[in-house]
Amino acid sequence: MKNIDSRVDSNMNGLISDLQLLIRQPSVSARSDGLFECAHLVASMMTKAGIETEILCINDAKDGKKPIPPLVYGEINSKSNPTGKTLMFYNHYDVQPEDPAELWVDDPFSGKIEGNFVFGRGSADDKGELITRIKAVQYLLEETGDVPCNMKFVIEGEEEIGSIHLDDYLTKYKNEFKCDGVIWEFGYVDDQDRPIISLGMKGLLYVELVAKGPVRDSHSSLAVLIENPAWCLIRALNTMRDKTGRILIKDWYKEVREFTDDELSLVSNEPFDQHEFKQQYGIETFVNDAMGIDISKALVGMPTCNIAGLISGYTGKGAKTVLPANAEAKLDFRLIPDMEPLRQFQRLSNHLEENGFKNTIELRLIHAEPAARTAISDPFVKKIKECADEVYGESILSVSSAGTGPMYSFIKNLHAPCVSIGSTYIYSRIHSPNEYTRIDLLKKTTKCIAAITEKFAVIE
Amino acid sequence: MKNIDSRVDSNMNGLISDLQLLIRQPSVSARSDGLFECAHLVASMMTKAGIETEILCINDAKDGKKPIPPLVYGEINSKSNPTGKTLMFYNHYDVQPEDPAELWVDDPFSGKIEGNFVFGRGSADDKGELITRIKAVQYLLEETGDVPCNMKFVIEGEEEIGSIHLDDYLTKYKNEFKCDGVIWEFGYVDDQDRPIISLGMKGLLYVELVAKGPVRDSHSSLAVLIENPAWCLIRALNTMRDKTGRILIKDWYKEVREFTDDELSLVSNEPFDQHEFKQQYGIETFVNDAMGIDISKALVGMPTCNIAGLISGYTGKGAKTVLPANAEAKLDFRLIPDMEPLRQFQRLSNHLEENGFKNTIELRLIHAEPAARTAISDPFVKKIKECADEVYGESILSVSSAGTGPMYSFIKNLHAPCVSIGSTYIYSRIHSPNEYTRIDLLKKTTKCIAAITEKFAVIE
Repeated sequence: MKNIDSRVDSNMNGLISDLQLLIRQPSVSARSDGLFECAHLVASMMTKAGIETEILCINDAKDGKKPIPPLVYGEINSKSNPTGKTLMFYNHYDVQPEDPAELWVDDPFSGKIEGNFVFGRGSADDKGELITRIKAVQYLLEETGDVPCNMKFVIEGEEEIGSIHLDDYLTKYKNEFKCDGVIWEFGYVDDQDRPIISLGMKGLLYVELVAKGPVRDSHSSLAVLIENPAWCLIRALNTMRDKTGRILIKDWYKEVREFTDDELSLVSNEPFDQHEFKQQYGIETFVNDAMGIDISKALVGMPTCNIAGLISGYTGKGAKTVLPANAEAKLDFRLIPDMEPLRQFQRLSNHLEENGFKNTIELRLIHAEPAARTAISDPFVKKIKECADEVYGESILSVSSAGTGPMYSFIKNLHAPCVSIGSTYIYSRIHSPNEYTRIDLLKKTTKCIAAITEKFAVIE
Repeated sequence: MKNIDSRVDSNMNGLISDLQLLIRQPSVSARSDGLFECAHLVASMMTKAGIETEILCINDAKDGKKPIPPLVYGEINSKSNPTGKTLMFYNHYDVQPEDPAELWVDDPFSGKIEGNFVFGRGSADDKGELITRIKAVQYLLEETGDVPCNMKFVIEGEEEIGSIHLDDYLTKYKNEFKCDGVIWEFGYVDDQDRPIISLGMKGLLYVELVAKGPVRDSHSSLAVLIENPAWCLIRALNTMRDKTGRILIKDWYKEVREFTDDELSLVSNEPFDQHEFKQQYGIETFVNDAMGIDISKALVGMPTCNIAGLISGYTGKGAKTVLPANAEAKLDFRLIPDMEPLRQFQRLSNHLEENGFKNTIELRLIHAEPAARTAISDPFVKKIKECADEVYGESILSVSSAGTGPMYSFIKNLHAPCVSIGSTYIYSRIHSPNEYTRIDLLKKTTKCIAAITEKFAVIE
């Protein structure tokens, strides 16, 4: 692999300029902005790299529905090892909204380079990760004229809105997508440059609560008579979570299982720099004053109820004495095995009803995704750890990321282990203003992906 | 007065086209938009009407402060009765923000006419009222070459942001502004075309609560560790008011005095069409299920704690899994005699501290204004009621409006009784999208104002 490493070293400019092209094509799934354009851009880069690429579309014929973003599918077979195992790369070409746009130092879609950093929405999540996978294949082909194992690419456009059609794609194409292991779309690297090899994802339930008041925003002197929907929303939200973070909805934790001994052993060994984390986020304490192993336990295995958005009435400058017509909250609940999102949704719905909010608050399901974990003992895990240790010097094995992704769909449809490994520095501000990626980590990850394809060719 | 009445009848087109000019000049004090332009427009209309007009400015020399909007001051003396009493008209040329702009059928600043209605921000509050005062004087002069009593106009530009400098103007010019009675800037007309002659205003305390979280919006998977400021804000708000509308802040009601017998007698006789009100606002019940006389008591004399605005995190379309950097609420508290706004602010501050929010929530005072009431027995009140009964057929005397205005400043500085009488239909959507005024009420009010100047000339 030495030759590949030096080819990566000498071709980083090409990798970075292609990443900039991807960043400069906005692809915000939350508002269906630029998705088709970005899918075509990705497909052309993959084709250029030597991957046989097609753009898959599923359409449900229902009138008036907006089009489902395409999935970019790629395949390349090993000439020397055509009947060997197949490695899949799962990535996404969509990004989070850039809001709040005014907090970006530069244009969120500029791809501006400063020293070791490339800035822009998607620079890390997930266009930075994606480019390492594509370039690893391209440089392998350029260097050796072949790839060590068969590979498939599944690159979706709805990850940031809960991968709402990915399961449909995986179900429809489950034979075509057959594979023996999946490299997940991201992988964090900690503040000591150790990649965190994560074996699981939390689930997610995303809902909106809408409290309705008078037919229009009204003069606030009428608050003596007209109930303000913002008060109603606040009372409802206040019944759902206590200040220690515990969720107060009946049976919320009913299916939660304890960590296994193997899991607990990994959790205990996960390093975490409290001081650095607190400094990065400008906080003084953790939720419920968590300390020691409880911090790692929380990241890996604690369900949450988070307010992602809140809006009512007048939010501009100065004073407006208004009684709002409605009040809205967006909530995301992180779930762990074996919590079923739709059952949790029903419990939330029951909770609102039992607390007297049935007629005053409308509950809307935005999306639902179960948690998933790959077994620590899977041989695929061991191979990836070996490659990571080689390229990075050291790596960390983690039971589950704190984040969410459609791992459950992959495991259910393809029966393949899924492992996260990648280039995303933990403080790279994904989902936040001034997101960036580190060029040194893009380089190491491209090398690591190339190494994994070598190891994977000889997996038992 | 018959001649004046027919002059008003035949000159309504001129009144309406001047009102349209006023509406088409936006003057949103909350964002300091168009205030100087509107003040000059008003001054030119007053001059044209025959009123000696000047634009007053007070400046504090502090660097970096934005300029204080001017006050338009006008004077006209009666030639036939120059040593008689002086009537003052208090109005304002600023308007509420047009937000939410997308809910307006037409441009909020179009002044569009449809049948009996003129639409636009400020059409009723307060440009519609103002034009009736100016035109009453103009038509009196045109018809008789004189006015029956001395008159003064005080027209400010910050009413919608709490009249924050009006007290400074009134204090500085208390000798120049000397008068014997004040016609207030608005007057409601009920759904049976009866003007409501209101003798008081509630006070107002407007504050912002800001809860601070991490240094930037962060990935919501970190909600296991980082406290979400929106939860903190919700817990704080939830301690402040119960679902019956009662304010839970210690000593909040301490100085509240009971209605006097005279007040209670007026309150008992105030008509209120529950059915119509509920239909207009699309609500089924009132706060705390108020019924009968409790409704009128609430409008006249109940303090409130209202959420005027709420914002945190992502409020766009679709889902964004974000842990917000901060969460903000705007609250307005209506106050009644003898609650002192700054003492109430201190009680709110203590409340937050006692409930553990001292370090997590920043409390900002936006403005403070005490309540005020003119005595029911004042002779000025009787004269106005006579004129209103004459022009409208019937009128209603009310102890206090549910709204707020700087009446306390007038009474304190000028020692003159203040009475509300005007043209604002109760369902004219002031402070809301699609605000309108009724042309028939503009006409009646212009006649009524002219009649009041006649009666005032001979007040004891």
